[in-house]
Amino acid sequence: MLPFDIIEYQNRISKTKQRMAESGIEVLLVTDPANMNYLSGYDAWSFYVHQMLIIVIDEPQPIWIGRYMDANGAKATTWIYDENIIPYPDYYVQSSVYHPMDFIAEILKQIGQGNRYIGVEMDNYYFSAKAYQRLTQNLPNATFKSADSLVNYVRLIKSDQEIEYMKRAAKIADQAMYKGIDTIRPGLRECDAAAQIYYQMISGTDEYGGDYPAIVPFLPSGENTGAPHLTWTERKFKQGESVIVELAGCYKRYHVPLARTVSIGKPAKELKKITPIVIDGLNELLDSIKPGMTCGDIEAIWRKNLKRYGIEKESRLGYSVGLNYPPDWGEHTASIRTGDPTVLQPNMTFHLIPALWFDDYGIEISESFRVTEKGCETFCEYPRELIIQDPIDVNHHGGIIS
Amino acid sequence: MLPFDIIEYQNRISKTKQRMAESGIEVLLVTDPANMNYLSGYDAWSFYVHQMLIIVIDEPQPIWIGRYMDANGAKATTWIYDENIIPYPDYYVQSSVYHPMDFIAEILKQIGQGNRYIGVEMDNYYFSAKAYQRLTQNLPNATFKSADSLVNYVRLIKSDQEIEYMKRAAKIADQAMYKGIDTIRPGLRECDAAAQIYYQMISGTDEYGGDYPAIVPFLPSGENTGAPHLTWTERKFKQGESVIVELAGCYKRYHVPLARTVSIGKPAKELKKITPIVIDGLNELLDSIKPGMTCGDIEAIWRKNLKRYGIEKESRLGYSVGLNYPPDWGEHTASIRTGDPTVLQPNMTFHLIPALWFDDYGIEISESFRVTEKGCETFCEYPRELIIQDPIDVNHHGGIIS
Repeated sequence: MLPFDIIEYQNRISKTKQRMAESGIEVLLVTDPANMNYLSGYDAWSFYVHQMLIIVIDEPQPIWIGRYMDANGAKATTWIYDENIIPYPDYYVQSSVYHPMDFIAEILKQIGQGNRYIGVEMDNYYFSAKAYQRLTQNLPNATFKSADSLVNYVRLIKSDQEIEYMKRAAKIADQAMYKGIDTIRPGLRECDAAAQIYYQMISGTDEYGGDYPAIVPFLPSGENTGAPHLTWTERKFKQGESVIVELAGCYKRYHVPLARTVSIGKPAKELKKITPIVIDGLNELLDSIKPGMTCGDIEAIWRKNLKRYGIEKESRLGYSVGLNYPPDWGEHTASIRTGDPTVLQPNMTFHLIPALWFDDYGIEISESFRVTEKGCETFCEYPRELIIQDPIDVNHHGGIIS
Repeated sequence: MLPFDIIEYQNRISKTKQRMAESGIEVLLVTDPANMNYLSGYDAWSFYVHQMLIIVIDEPQPIWIGRYMDANGAKATTWIYDENIIPYPDYYVQSSVYHPMDFIAEILKQIGQGNRYIGVEMDNYYFSAKAYQRLTQNLPNATFKSADSLVNYVRLIKSDQEIEYMKRAAKIADQAMYKGIDTIRPGLRECDAAAQIYYQMISGTDEYGGDYPAIVPFLPSGENTGAPHLTWTERKFKQGESVIVELAGCYKRYHVPLARTVSIGKPAKELKKITPIVIDGLNELLDSIKPGMTCGDIEAIWRKNLKRYGIEKESRLGYSVGLNYPPDWGEHTASIRTGDPTVLQPNMTFHLIPALWFDDYGIEISESFRVTEKGCETFCEYPRELIIQDPIDVNHHGGIIS
């Protein structure tokens, strides 16, 4: 069932231990589900309860600790020996009395790790303030260090197998975009289009089944195109308005996001004016990106370009993307924004989203790309344009996958 | 756009302030997206960045603080005055230098709240260890108190409008279960069934559009039915094996979960043996539940019943359910388990899931219910039985909604 060779997992563990050594960390508590998956293969929707992977710098095998009912899933999806799968009893779950970190602290003491330098993912969704408080109270002889994004940075450069999975995710993204946009027609509801997109994302292709994306598809319409993170409603699409579609194909937890803007009928004046600015800017960036540049360099090109039109973009232009779990498909490492010092290297992968949002409208046309030896290449094939949806002729945009 | 009357939101704020007063909290920082929605109406997939609602005990209006690009969404979906929507610049997002809690601490000081008793949701996914650390460092004159589940407990008893939304969610759950189970046939893949379930969950009915559930549908098959939280794969269903389907209908963020077990063809001996135990036990519980009992009392009935068969259930039997966001649809308050002292009152709502998992098989047949004046009533209408899926006759189970 493992999506990667055991050698690949062992390489990841080695790189992680190298970073641990550099940071003076002897025991790493990995609570980010993407990091847990990356190092062990563990893949289950169990992260709503406390769980972790423990990496001890001088032990070959990680230890998985989680809820009793999830231990079978850990045995089924990881390369870890069964003895290293340690379940805690159910009375620790969402209790005001017992806390899973009490159990975990006890295990750490029992295996002689209670007095070491312990790294924790301080700004992760799945390591709460209380988790930290209980651990530090229960392990007074340990020294806690921040290991924020330590494993995330190991994930920054993808292996060829990871790139292959992202290519499959890209096929799924293209298909979901084609079929999803085909349901954006006057009289249909936002939820109908979202349902179609979901169907495509999850069923995938005949060869590759789809996985759930770490973020739901966004498809704000009308005035809400200025509010990018609103989710769909029961509202019906109307002739003359625009709709933004942002989605990701996902294959074995690897994401390729893609955004397009659709005009139902003739585009509004503002949208028409801004479209070539975004597309030309995006094309220019994709032509310019090369290994050796920094993320900040990419943003500088965009900013200079946009300045000619008197427009400023407040938000970052993109971020590293790949393996992830809800609530975010971004990797929380490199961002394409002013001053980001990350030096581009082959097989880094990003979602480049030079979107612009105004008070009552917006535009998103994005690409996910991989840095190559000489430049970059995009994952998706969907036309890089403002989609004009003709409400009468259902075959208008011509590219519907049947 | 508000799903509830402003009076209802103001009632919720009043009840929250009453609990704040009882706990000696003057300023409550609400980071749980469900709690933010409950008090303000805010509804967007923006919780992957730090954000919060601030309730000041002696101020009538809450304050929303979040990312700049999400401020439009906050204005569109909440009843809060625009002046109380405070955005932070994008350079605070996922940065190793800047942290949104630095910004928020500064705001709290500016509005004269930096030296008060401040409540924080210590064990919430969206209040990280680092968030707590930065806040306490930046507000040395404040006294921090745990406000874990403070608002969650206000959510425990539903209003009639909330119950109405759950009834709509139940219709969606029933439909997704009917159509989903119809795709569980030899030769189809788990991902195909998941895609069909998603389509139904999201499109909803003609009257009521569906919303995304806080947990993906689970449909482990074969040996994996003993590992409840594994998600779908590309694996094809096989004649003679069983499949567990656990899903929720969701309407305006209100969930009604439902689980059933399907046998493709003749059920295996173990499954056949255990099915009446679970169904009779479930029926007995639903007949017994009355206001005035505690959650612990429900569990005691189940335990006594199960003891006759020499079976013990390690995990809790259910939990309070309703409004939520990923990664959990449970409310993190009352659990139906040994000793839980929560006294049942009318319009409390639970997911009762007396599931049993063994090493290589499992069974789940669940119901969501509302406590009534005299007993309880279930939300869904799907037959409470082991579903026998005949692979040949596609009309076998007779209840397919077309």
